[in-house]
Amino acid sequence: MPRPSLVRFGVSIEHDLIAKFDRHITKAGYGTRSEAIRDLIRARLVEEGIQDPKAAATGVLSLVYDHHQRELEDHLTGLQHDHHEQIISTTHVHLDHHNCLEVILLKGSAGEIRAIGAALASFKGVKHSSLNLTTTKEL
Amino acid sequence: MPRPSLVRFGVSIEHDLIAKFDRHITKAGYGTRSEAIRDLIRARLVEEGIQDPKAAATGVLSLVYDHHQRELEDHLTGLQHDHHEQIISTTHVHLDHHNCLEVILLKGSAGEIRAIGAALASFKGVKHSSLNLTTTKEL
Amino acid sequence: MPRPSLVRFGVSIEHDLIAKFDRHITKAGYGTRSEAIRDLIRARLVEEGIQDPKAAATGVLSLVYDHHQRELEDHLTGLQHDHHEQIISTTHVHLDHHNCLEVILLKGSAGEIRAIGAALASFKGVKHSSLNLTTTKEL
Amino acid sequence: MPRPSLVRFGVSIEHDLIAKFDRHITKAGYGTRSEAIRDLIRARLVEEGIQDPKAAATGVLSLVYDHHQRELEDHLTGLQHDHHEQIISTTHVHLDHHNCLEVILLKGSAGEIRAIGAALASFKGVKHSSLNLTTTKEL
Repeated sequence: MPRPSLVRFGVSIEHDLIAKFDRHITKAGYGTRSEAIRDLIRARLVEEGIQDPKAAATGVLSLVYDHHQRELEDHLTGLQHDHHEQIISTTHVHLDHHNCLEVILLKGSAGEIRAIGAALASFKGVKHSSLNLTTTKEL
Repeated sequence: MPRPSLVRFGVSIEHDLIAKFDRHITKAGYGTRSEAIRDLIRARLVEEGIQDPKAAATGVLSLVYDHHQRELEDHLTGLQHDHHEQIISTTHVHLDHHNCLEVILLKGSAGEIRAIGAALASFKGVKHSSLNLTTTKEL
Repeated sequence: MPRPSLVRFGVSIEHDLIAKFDRHITKAGYGTRSEAIRDLIRARLVEEGIQDPKAAATGVLSLVYDHHQRELEDHLTGLQHDHHEQIISTTHVHLDHHNCLEVILLKGSAGEIRAIGAALASFKGVKHSSLNLTTTKEL
Repeated sequence: MPRPSLVRFGVSIEHDLIAKFDRHITKAGYGTRSEAIRDLIRARLVEEGIQDPKAAATGVLSLVYDHHQRELEDHLTGLQHDHHEQIISTTHVHLDHHNCLEVILLKGSAGEIRAIGAALASFKGVKHSSLNLTTTKEL
């Protein structure tokens, strides 16, 4: 597998600004400015890419729910089976006596993933949900 | 296990506003206005709670990386072992020929989780990262 | 002008959750739970409404720029005149020796306002920009 | 007034990634890659800078409110006078029969500005509020 070909070009930045950026990326652990700038560029392109509901995307949906809520787990499992083509895997964690964390990995269009996330979040007993969407086309 | 005690109170809302909200929550799949309002309240409290770096939190970190990047997987595994007290579990997905998705579940203070996330994101070969933080104190 | 008619309905919330919400809204200065809940509902509807590029919207664009940058003010003024139908007013503040803050109020579709904001942000010398979009249809 | 001194350095980026970035910045209107990269860097530094409640900041607060709400304008004006040291200026727009937009420019610590914004947002009749915070130290 060949490595992707690299393009090298010059960037001009004010002295003060690059000094602040160097402190920022050193603290975060970056090895080079190039790597930090590539990450900024990819983050911006992904941010824009996921605006398109048809974009091929990967979703990581986190749900915190009360496992004492009757029938919730049946509902969650049922809805996941209805979307088995989009759902890659599920990881379950017992957070405390009441709360479970369920992390669901999804693949599909950005619009499909958002709709599945909203449907799962609306179940009674699901107390908090958040969705990370990434497109790989920009990566 | 006793169910949490419920408080019931009246809310006054303009006719037009509640009509729009009803359409919104029906589309999302909510069964009752109470459930939808509880979700809004919890989301706001969690959003505020995670501002505090010392808050007990749960994190879901999504990393997309190029598995052809030499030594990256060793670095990722090494750093995760250094933080084994915070890392609950890891799920790995092969997205395509180049890209892997690694989803890491973490537990600790919001500040610790953010720092681990930044360190993992800065490795060369990690192309995109995003972190969902939740506090359970508010749930 | 008649006041909008109010609808009153009951909401059930767990005792612990409403206690935390009461502390949150007291700190923020709210007089009643109803007012705080109305604000949460409106914020959610506006957040959803501005996703539609055709939605009638109001924008508040903040630009920080270096007024020593030659010709920037001419460019900014020129582009604003090209969009005089969307631009309501402009307020200018001298922040320090280098930096000016220009706040531009806009009216139009959400898509038009975003495009004008991106064009103004891309000028050389504009160091930071941020855009607040609101739809009034949901208010 | 001397121009800030520029530092020039090389950046290596995968061919595909820079091609996508070039399309993105051309569409946004940027003249050079350097200018677009400087904007990404400044946005990241500002985003981090405003996390510190003590950071010197500038705020642009947008409020949409119902001007039929009795006594609201007195309350808004009163609270603004209590904070006259932080408030730079106010611009007022009549959006439609019911709704006004008031845009308030503030200067102070990020924490002070957030607290004033929350207090103004909590008044009955204020239907929507949003706050843009910028730090100039990073610019």
